[in-house]
Amino acid sequence: MPELFLSPRLRPTPFTPGVEAAAPKAYTVYNRMRLASVFDSLESDCAHLKEHVQVWDVAVQRQVEIAGPDAPRLVQWMTPRDISRVGDGVCAYLPICDDSGGMLNDPVALRLDRELWWLSLADSDMLYYAKGLAIGAGLNVSVREPDVSPLAVQGPKAEELVARVFGDTVRKIGFFHFANCSLDGRNHIVARSGWSKQGGFEIYVDGHENGMPVFSALMEAGRDLHVRVGCPNSIERVESGLLSYGSDITWEHTPYQAGLSAYCHPETVECIGREPLLREAAEGPPRQIRCVSIGGGPAPQLTEFWPVTGSGLSVGRISSVAWSPEFRTNAAIGMIDRSHWEGGTRVEVHAPDGVRAAEIRESFYR
Amino acid sequence: MPELFLSPRLRPTPFTPGVEAAAPKAYTVYNRMRLASVFDSLESDCAHLKEHVQVWDVAVQRQVEIAGPDAPRLVQWMTPRDISRVGDGVCAYLPICDDSGGMLNDPVALRLDRELWWLSLADSDMLYYAKGLAIGAGLNVSVREPDVSPLAVQGPKAEELVARVFGDTVRKIGFFHFANCSLDGRNHIVARSGWSKQGGFEIYVDGHENGMPVFSALMEAGRDLHVRVGCPNSIERVESGLLSYGSDITWEHTPYQAGLSAYCHPETVECIGREPLLREAAEGPPRQIRCVSIGGGPAPQLTEFWPVTGSGLSVGRISSVAWSPEFRTNAAIGMIDRSHWEGGTRVEVHAPDGVRAAEIRESFYR
Repeated sequence: MPELFLSPRLRPTPFTPGVEAAAPKAYTVYNRMRLASVFDSLESDCAHLKEHVQVWDVAVQRQVEIAGPDAPRLVQWMTPRDISRVGDGVCAYLPICDDSGGMLNDPVALRLDRELWWLSLADSDMLYYAKGLAIGAGLNVSVREPDVSPLAVQGPKAEELVARVFGDTVRKIGFFHFANCSLDGRNHIVARSGWSKQGGFEIYVDGHENGMPVFSALMEAGRDLHVRVGCPNSIERVESGLLSYGSDITWEHTPYQAGLSAYCHPETVECIGREPLLREAAEGPPRQIRCVSIGGGPAPQLTEFWPVTGSGLSVGRISSVAWSPEFRTNAAIGMIDRSHWEGGTRVEVHAPDGVRAAEIRESFYR
Repeated sequence: MPELFLSPRLRPTPFTPGVEAAAPKAYTVYNRMRLASVFDSLESDCAHLKEHVQVWDVAVQRQVEIAGPDAPRLVQWMTPRDISRVGDGVCAYLPICDDSGGMLNDPVALRLDRELWWLSLADSDMLYYAKGLAIGAGLNVSVREPDVSPLAVQGPKAEELVARVFGDTVRKIGFFHFANCSLDGRNHIVARSGWSKQGGFEIYVDGHENGMPVFSALMEAGRDLHVRVGCPNSIERVESGLLSYGSDITWEHTPYQAGLSAYCHPETVECIGREPLLREAAEGPPRQIRCVSIGGGPAPQLTEFWPVTGSGLSVGRISSVAWSPEFRTNAAIGMIDRSHWEGGTRVEVHAPDGVRAAEIRESFYR
């Protein structure tokens, strides 16, 4: 792998000193910020995550704060999900669409107050989309990036660790719910969420200067739990079917194609892209995200889409792949045409090292 | 330096096969795409650029295409530069602002037709800002990313090389002007522009499938000119005072602070951020981009802003630095407070390896 040339344009995070001290082997760049990708190896990072607990710098999940009287109107306009059904203290996964119904992002939204929302972003500048919409329509809102940086604590021992630092109240937070918690007199939102299916929390650390104190408190309190500095793990997230915006789904895909119909209510809400979304809801999507099991031993790293063929025709592409030591297969995520998306369908995947037999699965591995 | 972990989210470009064959030592990520940063070494890449000619994959300068009856209105709304004064065939450097007057990008705009504009982007998703504004205000335009990827040819022998491939008409293209040129029956815009001051062109390659044919034609035709695959060079661009959006200027800065008052006409145009820009034009900016010469031998790589102090007070920050073998100093770009921005002012720069004496210069090195 080539080296990453750093500059301030690839912004450091409040937790960068803690991450750098743990010497990651590789980084990616996400929302123009640094995100560690590998510490020891993908395999051993994954095994540790499944057994213990890790602290992840996910400040790259930048927040877009939408505040003011028109905030609910703007948020509802940006997503086909009916936000009036989102209860208090709920983390709401929102597909964001443009006027063709294509997905521009898939943030987790926190409604802190009726007129105060945070969108915790995947990898695209929703700040500019929200600013453009607000200015264009003359809405009475302010749109800004607040000084808030998520820190994830993931793994089976995450609840124990977060409870040690933030108190036992965190044990009562339900999945995809959040609450206000405090450390050293500073309030931070704590949510039971995160980009793994090993359980855990995301702490929305309020204020750059509080980043390393929170980070260090967690690392200190977790010594006997074998806590490590970690990062989202490519193996675990593919096994779990957690989608990466920009790889697995892009602006070319509707939420239906991303398998997110449960979060789409264009019949009842006034949202951007409503007409094309209604059409696709009626006709059904022509392609959709699928779990694919690729045979033939550990596959090379995927750095560009791999074509998928079936019956000699192009029927989709693979966007993520990882050799799973747990499931003894190449777990993969693909966007597969309707003709070939049924579980059990056999297809061919054109990897750089040759054509491999593969099978569409009914579901992901967890 | 750590490694860069690649995935399709960090998109390859049409020229990626050619770049990878030349085996860059390091990459950065720009507009969620791969951009080589170093081939041999910064110093030797720079020396070669100043003597010969290089072909740069700058597809990361993504295009935003704004087309339709309201295109001139939308472009004018996004920038304080008076676009009615931009002549035919001119590349127009445009500061793009939000409603606080902060800069969101500094693209080069090409007006291909009255109702057809391309913005060739710096590192931020202007596609989403333009989409938001157009949808928000209900404008009659289409906003999309066309399949167009710039390829730069830079260096003193660039004109000879581009003329060999595209014909002698390119010799008549003036600085920051463009013309339609053809290769193998395909038209591409060719502009005399680029992110160095060594002279050269940018070819707006039309169509992904034409990327490698154009790239290869240039490499083939330039053998006796010592052509190399290259990339924007950190030393040359700092010596030349070419600003990097996201490092040297950010959304916290107005165009006046970026030293771009020549491109600001808020007195005469209706643009977003007009009021704050008029105020700053009247009062003068509180800080501005300056060339700074930092003493003390080759400085380490700058990966985060370095504070600048003067008279014991904070007076700015350094955002780019490069040891210049040609000028025997650490050439740097800083955002410096008005109190200390005059040429000849002595300041201190707080580098990671210690405090260094530095001096504000009247101008950059070329």
